Amino acid sequence: MTLTGREMRSTIDADGVLTLTLEEMTIGDPGDDEIIVRVEAAPINPSDLGLMFGPADISSVTLPVTSAGPAIKMSVPRERLAAIRGRIGQSLPIGNEGAGTVVATGRNARELEGKRVGMVGGSIYADYRRIAAKEVIVLPEGATAADGASMFVNPLTALGFVETARSEGHTAIVHTAAASNLGQMLQKICLADGIPLIDIVRSETQKQILRDIGATHVINSKDDDFRLQLVQALKETGATIAFDAIGGGTLGSDILSSMERAAVSTMTEYSRYGSDKSKQLYIYGALDPAPAVFNRLAFGFQWNAGGWLLFPYLRRAGEQVATRLRKRVIDELTTTFASKYTRVIGLAEALQPDVLRAYERKATGEKFLIDPTLS
Amino acid sequence: MTLTGREMRSTIDADGVLTLTLEEMTIGDPGDDEIIVRVEAAPINPSDLGLMFGPADISSVTLPVTSAGPAIKMSVPRERLAAIRGRIGQSLPIGNEGAGTVVATGRNARELEGKRVGMVGGSIYADYRRIAAKEVIVLPEGATAADGASMFVNPLTALGFVETARSEGHTAIVHTAAASNLGQMLQKICLADGIPLIDIVRSETQKQILRDIGATHVINSKDDDFRLQLVQALKETGATIAFDAIGGGTLGSDILSSMERAAVSTMTEYSRYGSDKSKQLYIYGALDPAPAVFNRLAFGFQWNAGGWLLFPYLRRAGEQVATRLRKRVIDELTTTFASKYTRVIGLAEALQPDVLRAYERKATGEKFLIDPTLS
Repeated sequence: MTLTGREMRSTIDADGVLTLTLEEMTIGDPGDDEIIVRVEAAPINPSDLGLMFGPADISSVTLPVTSAGPAIKMSVPRERLAAIRGRIGQSLPIGNEGAGTVVATGRNARELEGKRVGMVGGSIYADYRRIAAKEVIVLPEGATAADGASMFVNPLTALGFVETARSEGHTAIVHTAAASNLGQMLQKICLADGIPLIDIVRSETQKQILRDIGATHVINSKDDDFRLQLVQALKETGATIAFDAIGGGTLGSDILSSMERAAVSTMTEYSRYGSDKSKQLYIYGALDPAPAVFNRLAFGFQWNAGGWLLFPYLRRAGEQVATRLRKRVIDELTTTFASKYTRVIGLAEALQPDVLRAYERKATGEKFLIDPTLS
Repeated sequence: MTLTGREMRSTIDADGVLTLTLEEMTIGDPGDDEIIVRVEAAPINPSDLGLMFGPADISSVTLPVTSAGPAIKMSVPRERLAAIRGRIGQSLPIGNEGAGTVVATGRNARELEGKRVGMVGGSIYADYRRIAAKEVIVLPEGATAADGASMFVNPLTALGFVETARSEGHTAIVHTAAASNLGQMLQKICLADGIPLIDIVRSETQKQILRDIGATHVINSKDDDFRLQLVQALKETGATIAFDAIGGGTLGSDILSSMERAAVSTMTEYSRYGSDKSKQLYIYGALDPAPAVFNRLAFGFQWNAGGWLLFPYLRRAGEQVATRLRKRVIDELTTTFASKYTRVIGLAEALQPDVLRAYERKATGEKFLIDPTLS
């Protein structure tokens, strides 16, 4: 049997022209320890968009004059090319995670035949994905492909935040862009585990989403007295660690200095070095690609900021922790870790300019799922 | 015997008026485990200046119309008052470290009578300092008070950098403002211990100071091709940790992104998350009080930036490490850890406007020592 299928690819050439295509590929037979999964559901996450579009200017999107198949072009402004010089000329497969049905198995993986599985690992915006059997998780009875499509990145990230906070000795957490699917999962975990969480959002609608699932400290960064509210919530919760999806601008700095204000308010003696409370900011996303500005004189010397990424975190945490977290995801797949999708599109549909602009906007509450079987 | 002496004090009132005075104080008799040291040498470090002047505008310095003793006034711009609200109205003693002769001892500290000692702990810009006997170090035979005046802050900071780098798995180091007394000590330690060091300086004169003591990687940040030189030096040394005295602006960010460029240059496959090389920036000073600007998209997700302060570091490192470091300082007091002073001034002299402006300027190669016995 020779299986062929489409696979989404993104290439940026030396002139800064980005081409997104669906390439027809031949799927090789599975090796002894491999399987082939027919992809039936794959979420569009911010991390997927990063690879799909790089730093391209979305408003420049055009349909190519001639093309062998579905394709779309846009341009990367010249001044942004240096940052991505490593990918120039490379055809990169897209799609971090997804779920589907096993349609072929190697000799050591026969028990997976016909099973519905979730998987992570790239190249998943495709009709078929050949993958090592040990890298998929069989979905629980009754779960749909959509239920299992986002079972890795967001759930493990939310659980990873809580594990990170605990292992570094923090007792309460701050989260930004907190009304996202990920943010809602984090809120549910913190409620279940009794960890105070401060959710920072950018609208009243987002505030309500979190209140509806039981959040108690939700702050709108657009409020005039945002900083005062934040300091108050930090005093109440004692949070000294923050996970920030935004990255650019001064929000991270504002959180650190508010933590410092909360800490200083309990000090009896002045120190020019500030409080001795350790304050940690992890930046895990780049919703705002602008530089991060740290007004560090407002937060003393006991601070730390750094990048947080799921897979390096899982490697550091070790196999035992990773297994425990994965088990919790399976156990709570349709409760804590349920993802909501507002629109399901086909693979070719994802290359239509109007559809592309809609999912690229990353609007609150909107979440797209790709189902390659739709076309 | 009732001993009296002068002590330097800095106070900022609610209107932002900073007053620096010498107060006549009565020194209480030493307790059983205490001694009294006649201060004979105390360096003016950037950390002392921070407490002396806070965020005051030095150009506003005036002599008060009437005053009981030597005094000087200047004003703190209103917008900078919020950052130092914790010290408003408090009279703060100045002087982190120094050396002198023991002139009185408690009953459990008689063996220190007449000895020359080094000490750290604040309130040292004074004629006398009462202090716990266990907190001083007897200087080696033949060492002057000037030799022992700076035996804590700079030597332990330089050694602490090397210990920190080693304990976090780094094999080479980047240092900014590298021609300082501290920077020269760090260079000597790294040469002795075989640790590659990249010195970043801001002038050719500074470059020469470091070359003269054997530095091999000295880069002038004013050079047009500074970034290229830095990437090249990072490739040669493999440095992945930096200690930055400047803090404000983009230098820290430039170092992290240059480390990333050096790391990416050895990668065979593109990753939108950047290299998996951990990059660490520690900010230990504030020569530039402006916000730090991190262009983090240029350095991937494997980065970390934070404050580094000597005393919290020593607490974390533990008694055994601290003892080992102190022993090395004593052993190499007049070689590795020799400090050069360009001018010795009296306590009252430090309150003369022209003298004050000279040491506040923190010019390269200039270093002031206070000797209260001069007047």
